[in-house]
Amino acid sequence: MADKNDVFYTLNATTQCPLSIPIKKTNTDELAQALSAAEEATLAFAATTLQQRIRLLTEIQKGLEAHQQAILKTYCEESGLPEGRAQGEFQRTHGQIEHFKARLKEGRFLEASIVSPIAATADIRKMLVPLGPVVVFGASNFPLAFSTAGGDTISALAAGCPVLVKAHPYHAHTSTLVAAVIEKAIARCGFPKGVFSHLCSDQLELGQQLVCDPRVKAVGFTGSFRGGKALYDLAQQRPQPIPVFAEMGSVNPVFILPDVLQSEGAALAASIAGSVCLGNGQFCTNPGLIAVTKGESVEFISALKTALSEHGKGVMVHPNIQKGYENQLENLKKHHPEVVLYQSEAGGPALGIVPAEEVWKNPNLMEEVFGPFTLLITHDSVLALHQTAQILEGQLTATLRASTKELQEHQQLQHILQQKVGRLLFEGVPTGVSVTQTMMHGGPFPASSDSRFTAVGSDAIYRWLRPLAFQDAPQEALPPALQNHNPLGIQRKIDGQWTTSAL
Amino acid sequence: MADKNDVFYTLNATTQCPLSIPIKKTNTDELAQALSAAEEATLAFAATTLQQRIRLLTEIQKGLEAHQQAILKTYCEESGLPEGRAQGEFQRTHGQIEHFKARLKEGRFLEASIVSPIAATADIRKMLVPLGPVVVFGASNFPLAFSTAGGDTISALAAGCPVLVKAHPYHAHTSTLVAAVIEKAIARCGFPKGVFSHLCSDQLELGQQLVCDPRVKAVGFTGSFRGGKALYDLAQQRPQPIPVFAEMGSVNPVFILPDVLQSEGAALAASIAGSVCLGNGQFCTNPGLIAVTKGESVEFISALKTALSEHGKGVMVHPNIQKGYENQLENLKKHHPEVVLYQSEAGGPALGIVPAEEVWKNPNLMEEVFGPFTLLITHDSVLALHQTAQILEGQLTATLRASTKELQEHQQLQHILQQKVGRLLFEGVPTGVSVTQTMMHGGPFPASSDSRFTAVGSDAIYRWLRPLAFQDAPQEALPPALQNHNPLGIQRKIDGQWTTSAL
Repeated sequence: MADKNDVFYTLNATTQCPLSIPIKKTNTDELAQALSAAEEATLAFAATTLQQRIRLLTEIQKGLEAHQQAILKTYCEESGLPEGRAQGEFQRTHGQIEHFKARLKEGRFLEASIVSPIAATADIRKMLVPLGPVVVFGASNFPLAFSTAGGDTISALAAGCPVLVKAHPYHAHTSTLVAAVIEKAIARCGFPKGVFSHLCSDQLELGQQLVCDPRVKAVGFTGSFRGGKALYDLAQQRPQPIPVFAEMGSVNPVFILPDVLQSEGAALAASIAGSVCLGNGQFCTNPGLIAVTKGESVEFISALKTALSEHGKGVMVHPNIQKGYENQLENLKKHHPEVVLYQSEAGGPALGIVPAEEVWKNPNLMEEVFGPFTLLITHDSVLALHQTAQILEGQLTATLRASTKELQEHQQLQHILQQKVGRLLFEGVPTGVSVTQTMMHGGPFPASSDSRFTAVGSDAIYRWLRPLAFQDAPQEALPPALQNHNPLGIQRKIDGQWTTSAL
Repeated sequence: MADKNDVFYTLNATTQCPLSIPIKKTNTDELAQALSAAEEATLAFAATTLQQRIRLLTEIQKGLEAHQQAILKTYCEESGLPEGRAQGEFQRTHGQIEHFKARLKEGRFLEASIVSPIAATADIRKMLVPLGPVVVFGASNFPLAFSTAGGDTISALAAGCPVLVKAHPYHAHTSTLVAAVIEKAIARCGFPKGVFSHLCSDQLELGQQLVCDPRVKAVGFTGSFRGGKALYDLAQQRPQPIPVFAEMGSVNPVFILPDVLQSEGAALAASIAGSVCLGNGQFCTNPGLIAVTKGESVEFISALKTALSEHGKGVMVHPNIQKGYENQLENLKKHHPEVVLYQSEAGGPALGIVPAEEVWKNPNLMEEVFGPFTLLITHDSVLALHQTAQILEGQLTATLRASTKELQEHQQLQHILQQKVGRLLFEGVPTGVSVTQTMMHGGPFPASSDSRFTAVGSDAIYRWLRPLAFQDAPQEALPPALQNHNPLGIQRKIDGQWTTSAL
């Protein structure tokens, strides 16, 4: 039996009792070993063929399926999320892997490009190559899809980067089960063990050590602004700074213009309330801010109150998150009498209402309250909505609900919102981030630390790749993707045109 | 006449006498005005059509041509570089603009991508949009091609980002002439003045203020590690960090294997010496490090000494750079007796020779000496070359000269070098960076601050763009690039396939 200082326990989120199986903390030796192994695996893993990486991803999918029952049981215990959500997230995780397999099969993500050599000029060819070992932090709110075998890990493996996962301490047991699947898949494929490592701790130091280690070349993180920014800063203060993709959430403002407020107010209120309460408000895309014109919003507000109260109090993935939520609301009540709060059940969904003028005076009011809360800002006119849009920080999403006529009349509002977000919606709600090549999940700081990349969708692979040019290389020295006869049969850019032709 | 504290003077690099025309320092009000103007121009400039931006670039080309004589005269005075080089760099600057015009014409850089909407799922479309105002720092060693109308400025304007150029104080007059051309081009196109601003100072503060201003969204820099890293750190310490692309130079190691040393040693020595001395050693791609096997290098070394001495002492772009060069060599002589120095003329080209073992003990010996200097490292075996490759820092380029047989036998050496560089050459010399879509000019830190992007070639445009997704947008609200009927007629990715078809 391990020393009690060497282990920690996760909680059953519903009963708040510790699970019986201890999680062994990664110690200094194990950390050093994992980092060396990742470094040593780098060249060999970068040299694997796309087919070999497809096989690895397939083995991971198979392993997840084989252990689905155990994984989902632990997932529900540790997160308090319902079985349906667990199933959905499991399918999403599986589906994400399928997307990256498709990108590997297509091979175009390598961006292999060749300018036909002309006598007397150099023959320069370029393709994307992996950055090296990537550290991935499991996300508290998505124990599967944004954690151990989630989008960060799978996109990095697809790119050819070894991965070191720091398990989220709230669901370290789920993480361990998933990690075992990945480790087995790597063994089956005959890849070096260092291609994947799983590290556990209930302390912050482990993550900090990982981010600061010179062998680590990039970081993926999904979580709070405080956590993401701290890791970002550590990574930038290294003697050799590295790219960090930190998706740090946002308030995902919804702007509703008068025509829509009046014609669809009640229906809209119900769907927005559903989005606010989805996953008990623990999604990074829950709409935490609603901007409306005062005159047309009476019915909408009344329907929103009803809908929120009907959702009732849910279970948070961890008591600390519930506590944090309650403290933030308490703080609003105590220090911000200008915000009128509605909450039908302590700890449950809540609505704040505040006039725009107060927000303009104190934009901090727009900061995220993590949980099933939304702040409704009332405006005297549509023009006033522009002013609120103007002072928004960077967001993952914004939603602009307007009639065709309103869109035409208020193009400027749309343009302001476009400057602030990674995704702009005109229908529906921001939760439910589809995994598609066209998804952008990221946005101007502080929504994410690098707005040039997405965390969701198969383009997430680009976070872990960099261009490498080969000048005047003999055919044999070129990677297959750049050889004249195109042995991989992939799409390549030759003289600017995509083609599968040989040169 | 301006107060003497409000102006500074640039030098004639050859005579080291100040030019007669004073350069007015940008004052606090002018800085504030330029930043506001850039911010105000952001939306309007982002909304310009690709055709309008092509017109802007064409007007800049025309203006440069119209003022070519005056620009080149001042260029030669301020830089001390010969007329031929001035002509060449002028043509390069013109040619670069042509490359970006071609990208704008093609439109594919927008990465417009659409997944055909299927009933019951959201319609999500994505394209790249400009980041916002970009600060560009003129480079001391390329008064045209990497300065005011150089690759950074032109790629940012092509991307739709307003640009604020901080003129390099060594050639502020050349910069002012070029800036006037750009300002006139902007006026002719009817764009807001804030699309381009030109700022001058002989102090560091101005650049620091620019990088720290919240209205600035990205930075482009070419220069020393010290300068680039300082700006990078400032940008990362902002409340809202921004992307910085700093190209900070490197030693561009050349690895020569025994077969090639023996068969081509003398010819190679001449071409490498030419590359070392090109632009009097002031290019970021001059080969500052040569790794050879001892046994086969006698003839090569002798030919290298001769070739370097024949190049003779040139003029540096500024006396400070000449002084820096001489100090670095003095320091080597004084503190590193293990490095044997050859220099036929004080202040002229120099060669250092050192056994690999000394470098392994003290890798700092590999640091860049800015100027016409190269350090030759002798090794006992080809295997020892691997060890030197292994301890290299990130580089813009490496050159691997090896016979077909040697390449086969030493694949590992190639793979190690690939991890370290942005461009790997197998023939020729690293200077002479072609402007082509396949160029990669950048590399792992400290060669550049973000190895995922290039500073040369038309892909440099991607540094200033970020993805923006539109979900369920009505046709009229979509940017033309994403509308069903493809009004721009550009190549778009529809369901993963590039096509100009309408949806």
